[in-house]
Amino acid sequence: MKLAKPITVRGAAIAQGRVPAICTPFVGRTANEILAELATVLRKSPDIVEWRVDHFADIGDTDAVIDVARRIKSQAPEMPLVFTRRSEREGGAKTSLVGDEAVDLYEAVCAARCIDLADWEMAHGPASMTRVREAAHANDVALIASYHDFAATPANAVLLEKFAQAARDGADVAKVAVMPSDPSDVLRLLDATWQAHRSLPIPLISMAMGPLGTLSRIAGAAFGSALTFAVGAASSAPGQLGIDDLRAALDIMQRASGGSR
Amino acid sequence: MKLAKPITVRGAAIAQGRVPAICTPFVGRTANEILAELATVLRKSPDIVEWRVDHFADIGDTDAVIDVARRIKSQAPEMPLVFTRRSEREGGAKTSLVGDEAVDLYEAVCAARCIDLADWEMAHGPASMTRVREAAHANDVALIASYHDFAATPANAVLLEKFAQAARDGADVAKVAVMPSDPSDVLRLLDATWQAHRSLPIPLISMAMGPLGTLSRIAGAAFGSALTFAVGAASSAPGQLGIDDLRAALDIMQRASGGSR
Repeated sequence: MKLAKPITVRGAAIAQGRVPAICTPFVGRTANEILAELATVLRKSPDIVEWRVDHFADIGDTDAVIDVARRIKSQAPEMPLVFTRRSEREGGAKTSLVGDEAVDLYEAVCAARCIDLADWEMAHGPASMTRVREAAHANDVALIASYHDFAATPANAVLLEKFAQAARDGADVAKVAVMPSDPSDVLRLLDATWQAHRSLPIPLISMAMGPLGTLSRIAGAAFGSALTFAVGAASSAPGQLGIDDLRAALDIMQRASGGSR
Repeated sequence: MKLAKPITVRGAAIAQGRVPAICTPFVGRTANEILAELATVLRKSPDIVEWRVDHFADIGDTDAVIDVARRIKSQAPEMPLVFTRRSEREGGAKTSLVGDEAVDLYEAVCAARCIDLADWEMAHGPASMTRVREAAHANDVALIASYHDFAATPANAVLLEKFAQAARDGADVAKVAVMPSDPSDVLRLLDATWQAHRSLPIPLISMAMGPLGTLSRIAGAAFGSALTFAVGAASSAPGQLGIDDLRAALDIMQRASGGSR
């Protein structure tokens, strides 16, 4: 079975190259909540963690953000950390940031070298993507260019274009997450992932969200998705499985396929 | 989630209507082997069992076949029993039967009322299908009209036609099993199942075999497949999971989707 390309950080594949890597988000509002949630999450042994900073009440205070990121890295120095300000439009929490403040925040956090990967939404446009990419790459941070549709699953050509745009934007990873309204939407998302996997040089992350999409979270790696999200303490998107259930399902898939995860 | 239509036997849905029902085959060569295998299989609590009579050394002795079927029913009176002579061409064991002897055997076994469902391959043509259907229905046996391709996954139109042909043949269940050579073949099989589910009135069984097809065995019910095969004691086709693993994976899918299996 041709498996997904693993995601690398500073030349090293995460999860020792196993795909899919299991990523657990945390969504606390305060520094204490975040660090407590991280501690809970770490006991579940994810391969990578994602700080959803849009849930952080002090997101407008750049020093506070950097301080929390440093405390996260201090608590889990070996754990790859994704820094993500998910926009409200793409399923995130409402924040106080306006205009280019989010770009400024990403630049500062990259420059502080307290994260390993940065997720930036392609919908913000090429100018901000360029600024975030340059800040990330100048500081050895890997860039995830992302696209989320919480309402629908776009047409196949749109899905393929989102993956391709991420590669053209110079991202290190392309992420596409959609909401299926029908089982066939899940198949289209997996098919687009498979086509992108064969045509693009960068690792991919994809999923169909919600109850219909469960199989994409379990079986996506066979179609080229390098990473799957699972709940450690609190869910950050609909349809995420608990990490124990996800790992059990992945192990069953692996035994059945005779492959290695 | 729109789930598969359950398979019914004499008006009662198997597995109390849960989909997918778990079917465990047994493939012994002698009566003693078969009954011992059945005992092992029953401890795993499948929803339905399939006797692959093509593995039975005495398949040419109709009385011996009926005697074993009766002993199976006697050992497991409440367990729905599928009677299947898989042809060599569609992945079965080589047998001594020639010409219409297999049709004669099905007629005799149906008339003996010692089975609950009969699987007959569409490739044998309409004349034999009519004979098997009439024998089945005259004796309250449900008919599964089946198609297997152990070498490839036919084009979408062919897959849809196989499901449709089973319905036109007057079968109670349509079964289509294919071999994927690529992850996208698995998606095509699931998509064809979903399309057939929406257009045909009868329950369906479908799977992509081999290591690539594992996800179809776990997630097929979301696309309209009412039944999935799992190994109790011995595998009868490539890619079958152990029943414990399959059930665990189905339970995880159910918890994640919030649906009921």
